[in-house]
Amino acid sequence: MRLQLPPGRNAAQFDAGLAAFRGVVGDDWLLATDLDRDTYSDFYAPGDEELHAPGAAVAPASVEETRAIVRLANEHRIPLWPVSRGKNLGYGAAAPRVAGSVVLDLGRMRRILEVNPELAYCVVEPGVSFFDLYEHLQANDIPLWMSVPGNAWGSVMGNALDRGFGYTPYGTHSRNICGMEVVLPDGDLIRTNMGAMEGAHAWHAFPFGFGPSFDQMFVQSNLGVVTRMGLWLQPAPESSMTLAVQIPNEEDIGWVMDTISPMRRNGLIDQNQFVPSWLGKMVVMGVRSDFWDGPGAMPESRVQELLREHNLGYWAVNIRLYGQDSVNQAKAALIKAAFAEHIDTPFEETVWNRGDPMIPMDLSMGVPSAVPLQMGGWTGGRGSHLGFSPIVPATSAHVLRQLRRSRELIAAHDVDFYASFTIGERAANNINMLMYDRDNEEQVRNIRALFSALVEQAREAGYGEYRTHLTWMDPVSDTFDFNDHALRRMNEKIKDALDPNGIIAPGKQGVWPSALREQRT
Amino acid sequence: MRLQLPPGRNAAQFDAGLAAFRGVVGDDWLLATDLDRDTYSDFYAPGDEELHAPGAAVAPASVEETRAIVRLANEHRIPLWPVSRGKNLGYGAAAPRVAGSVVLDLGRMRRILEVNPELAYCVVEPGVSFFDLYEHLQANDIPLWMSVPGNAWGSVMGNALDRGFGYTPYGTHSRNICGMEVVLPDGDLIRTNMGAMEGAHAWHAFPFGFGPSFDQMFVQSNLGVVTRMGLWLQPAPESSMTLAVQIPNEEDIGWVMDTISPMRRNGLIDQNQFVPSWLGKMVVMGVRSDFWDGPGAMPESRVQELLREHNLGYWAVNIRLYGQDSVNQAKAALIKAAFAEHIDTPFEETVWNRGDPMIPMDLSMGVPSAVPLQMGGWTGGRGSHLGFSPIVPATSAHVLRQLRRSRELIAAHDVDFYASFTIGERAANNINMLMYDRDNEEQVRNIRALFSALVEQAREAGYGEYRTHLTWMDPVSDTFDFNDHALRRMNEKIKDALDPNGIIAPGKQGVWPSALREQRT
Repeated sequence: MRLQLPPGRNAAQFDAGLAAFRGVVGDDWLLATDLDRDTYSDFYAPGDEELHAPGAAVAPASVEETRAIVRLANEHRIPLWPVSRGKNLGYGAAAPRVAGSVVLDLGRMRRILEVNPELAYCVVEPGVSFFDLYEHLQANDIPLWMSVPGNAWGSVMGNALDRGFGYTPYGTHSRNICGMEVVLPDGDLIRTNMGAMEGAHAWHAFPFGFGPSFDQMFVQSNLGVVTRMGLWLQPAPESSMTLAVQIPNEEDIGWVMDTISPMRRNGLIDQNQFVPSWLGKMVVMGVRSDFWDGPGAMPESRVQELLREHNLGYWAVNIRLYGQDSVNQAKAALIKAAFAEHIDTPFEETVWNRGDPMIPMDLSMGVPSAVPLQMGGWTGGRGSHLGFSPIVPATSAHVLRQLRRSRELIAAHDVDFYASFTIGERAANNINMLMYDRDNEEQVRNIRALFSALVEQAREAGYGEYRTHLTWMDPVSDTFDFNDHALRRMNEKIKDALDPNGIIAPGKQGVWPSALREQRT
Repeated sequence: MRLQLPPGRNAAQFDAGLAAFRGVVGDDWLLATDLDRDTYSDFYAPGDEELHAPGAAVAPASVEETRAIVRLANEHRIPLWPVSRGKNLGYGAAAPRVAGSVVLDLGRMRRILEVNPELAYCVVEPGVSFFDLYEHLQANDIPLWMSVPGNAWGSVMGNALDRGFGYTPYGTHSRNICGMEVVLPDGDLIRTNMGAMEGAHAWHAFPFGFGPSFDQMFVQSNLGVVTRMGLWLQPAPESSMTLAVQIPNEEDIGWVMDTISPMRRNGLIDQNQFVPSWLGKMVVMGVRSDFWDGPGAMPESRVQELLREHNLGYWAVNIRLYGQDSVNQAKAALIKAAFAEHIDTPFEETVWNRGDPMIPMDLSMGVPSAVPLQMGGWTGGRGSHLGFSPIVPATSAHVLRQLRRSRELIAAHDVDFYASFTIGERAANNINMLMYDRDNEEQVRNIRALFSALVEQAREAGYGEYRTHLTWMDPVSDTFDFNDHALRRMNEKIKDALDPNGIIAPGKQGVWPSALREQRT
């Protein structure tokens, strides 16, 4: 990918900045060839790769090197785009919002700094992947379980910082954050919460400090570069059981929601309950052309045939209980009774006990897997996906309303429908996976139009996205419009105070420093 | 109390400011007589009432009036000290950090804006008290339980904003906050998280939004005036049971911690587990002179006599299980087995079922009570208390270390020892109640010396306070010293950006606007 310069910098200025960065990290870790730029670009880009083309990448080995680079970026006015491992697939991968930004690749900082088995937390650097942490826990026989996203290719910290979700009791990843170390945009270094006391013992054990707590200010944020994070982990249960059932019809999601949602609050179900539609299963069983070779969305009649052939429901429910066998059995009896009011099918049950092997690819046990990435093959060509992810209150009324409306819009654009709801304590995250062949111009055009229409439609109905792709960061940010975007106005005031030169991730989540505010689309 | 002017204002300027405030709220709600100033002063003040003397109080009736006052305070450079109901007893009550500040009393804004029984949350204004909300829930037969602090005299919102604790599964009150409306120091109005979208349905159902989340930035904070807060409530359980036992010896807190702490994480105990020492019981049974009339701390021999006479242990453990009877029974069996490894005494058990009356004063059911305020009578005279509250990791090693050290220091100052641990998921809040007669100069001098020594001692050992009285806000803030107070430096940068005139609660939690930074003690 050919070089694009960041706004307001000429080639000489940019080169001087890169030379300065090189002075910190050495030749090997300043990456500025066309091939390097390809590596850090959005390989699922929906047609606008050039708008988010990295100018280069720089990979520090330590907090001190990170601070030095941040200071030099101020001096040379070169925007940095921090990534942990750069695997934010479907949301832009490692690519920056502003073309010409230098990707600050923190992947070399890959130490697991602490695992506390007694208090059940870990402390990690940005480069630690889900697989790294999993292998460390397994190899050392540490009785702690992780929570992982569907595609667990990336960084533990990066995922929490982008507010990723998993499917265990610790599945709202950003809520497990407990204490950070952050390089501020001027190169200063803070520790949050109790960590603000040098040598404090409760840094990663108590999620607040004295005065305001700033951990969540650094989530989905461009206000600093997080170099260390405490994250709570789940004690491995003594015993665990699963209750799995297929739910036949699309509209059944209404009663499913009203059955699971109260149990998420009354103690019967602790996990973030993942309810995917049938296509979630099909994308790992084969590619689209195995099941249907017509153009446009698979027709409903063929969908129904496939469900019958493969013994699938429209939705799948797989509840996992964690704890002690006697408690799990008591809970299971009550859960089964609640479902029996709606469905005759018996649950498939399994029991796991401490000492049994972990089950490969089991997200509800926090076992990392990259298998769902197989959906990349679904459309053929360079298969890509975008996630459209509004948050809806966890009631049938809201869920059915949003489902019917988005379903209709997706059908009108002739795109395969693949939705899931992840049911949290009071809200559900409704991810709609939109798959396309990025080399098929018509598909790309169609997907872009669909995505924009979905954002607009959800806003009309009063539902906001929790996360989005680089391309829609400004449009989604625009939908948060109370009092003429007052929250964004405050965020940008803080941005200008902490980052007067606007060098950390300008434009991320629609937040712009004053120097680059005219770039807002 | 006679008038003291705020820093840098003369009498004419101050009067002009009050006149402007009066123009917003009318004569009745601008309170500026000596008697008014008494009303808003710290009635437990440890000898420095004058340093925190309010200049006046102003009580707006609405968000718009609040915004108008904030704008006028900027114009007239008069610092405001926002309080919800001003019952922050032991930490300064309604009194401001800086003498001459005008108390912004939000108590007239007292509407319960919403109670959502399906999703289990409420939305309240600042003036709603624990008793208001409790009565509303009871009168309307709404199956939701609250979490309340020991002394539930104050505001639901105010307590959460000062990071108060309760003793139920929802006992870390600031963690239940979900979506706020905030008047910023320049009079702008924001809604946080999903509420940043006008008309968003998930404002109080999902605790984050798009981009950084700022809810916790407004907790223990002087960055804005919160006028509306969503707060998650607990669904009333179908069944609940208690397991109560007295723990004989002081050092038993070690095994108690190591028994309860893992159960706080493995699902057996959901509540913030309150473990008070014996004096917690005595202070509501009588006054000090009923039990001992010597000077100084009650001698250990007399303590042991009293424990025998009253059938008390040194510590009390009262576990409450919430949920369904079958699940509670299964959990209770496991909890009893865990305690049986250390103690022979059987638990006293009670069972409550939906439909049974609530138990008066039961904090573990979230029933508000002001009875523990009776400790005000303990010393005689105008009895007062201070809470010294370090956070310790929830392990026996940390808890015993902190207990032994603070115990020794308190004994050396000849003060009655009254400690409690509230065991959260990974840390315990160790409140040491220090009681004194505020009219006894020697007691006051002694308590002040003790408190300062406790802060210093905890800092040496690596434990930080989560909250403190006005008098120690700067000293406690000083103990958070990593990288030359880098977190405070950032906080003050944000303070200056959002509040350039420094008019909202200057000095709160040791955070000063640049205009008044020389006031730091």
